[in-house]
Amino acid sequence: MRLTKGNLIILSGPSGVGKSTVCRALLAQSNNLVLSISATTRQPRPGELAGREYFFYSPEKFAEALKQNAFLEWAEVFGNYYGTPRAYVEKVLAQGQDCLLEIDVQGALQVKAQWPEGIFVFLVPPSQEELKKRITLRATENEVERQKRLNQAQIELSYLSEYDYLVVNDDLAAAVKKLQAIIIAERCRLSRLDRKEVF
Amino acid sequence: MRLTKGNLIILSGPSGVGKSTVCRALLAQSNNLVLSISATTRQPRPGELAGREYFFYSPEKFAEALKQNAFLEWAEVFGNYYGTPRAYVEKVLAQGQDCLLEIDVQGALQVKAQWPEGIFVFLVPPSQEELKKRITLRATENEVERQKRLNQAQIELSYLSEYDYLVVNDDLAAAVKKLQAIIIAERCRLSRLDRKEVF
Repeated sequence: MRLTKGNLIILSGPSGVGKSTVCRALLAQSNNLVLSISATTRQPRPGELAGREYFFYSPEKFAEALKQNAFLEWAEVFGNYYGTPRAYVEKVLAQGQDCLLEIDVQGALQVKAQWPEGIFVFLVPPSQEELKKRITLRATENEVERQKRLNQAQIELSYLSEYDYLVVNDDLAAAVKKLQAIIIAERCRLSRLDRKEVF
Repeated sequence: MRLTKGNLIILSGPSGVGKSTVCRALLAQSNNLVLSISATTRQPRPGELAGREYFFYSPEKFAEALKQNAFLEWAEVFGNYYGTPRAYVEKVLAQGQDCLLEIDVQGALQVKAQWPEGIFVFLVPPSQEELKKRITLRATENEVERQKRLNQAQIELSYLSEYDYLVVNDDLAAAVKKLQAIIIAERCRLSRLDRKEVF
């Protein structure tokens, strides 16, 4: 069988939609899909293994990688830096595997600028009401926090049109099936096939 | 659940690739997919039911339908006319079902001109050698016939770039699974969703 280069699948969605649960189930049920591994400057936690949960970078190494444009996207969170190393994604795809990147909307927009051929999937809850309910269940801290998260979700939703696919997460198994279908279908897209691979 | 308009899926491929077998298996394993029904001026054969195998048109009715641009494509074969009535396809899609059209490359190009939002899938055998083998097995008549069919297949293959998807028919179950994935994925494509349907 010919080795076909894999695709990069970017999964985003408002917080509370269940991205991580869907990603875990999708990875467990897929043979040829690998989760992207981020680089971070934060310290490893007990049980975390370099190259498994994260690539652990010194601040100097991270700064150098940034200068080299070695990340598909990056962000600073509470004083630590996180980024998606381009080289790891490229290695996975070159092996003929697809690579899954679970990321917020801001990160996805950065990836799109660097990797426009990515497959951008937006996961949404069944309805606006359901989204509010899920955020309220999570944001137990206080009303200010709840309102902040609701606003954040609305901002994220406004970037929907940047995506290729919309998957409604009304049912975990159904959402996973749709994602698997998207991955299989994109492997058949003529625009993604090298001329020499084509029949 | 909201009713989403269905998609028209056009399946083509060189003769001998096994289009009909794949279509039958796909229809048998799909809940929401309806085969397009052609109109024809030829006489019904025993066991054929109007509106099931074909819509049977008089030559006058067919000519009038042609004038009205009522076909997505049409052709004359051995003195009989065949066409795909636009109204039937539209009815199926409006009901929220997908519609499958198995058709040769010339017909598919006509459909594409009239229905560019169709999903155009090209089915190919695993290799050029396999295609030659299959055509040779079928064209038992004589060498001229065999050569004619081989040339025809090459001409058909040259239109590959007009299609959205390429599915290799190396294994019936695998080909059906890919077609099902394409149908599910296209239902999730943002560009196909009405703004008001979108979350």
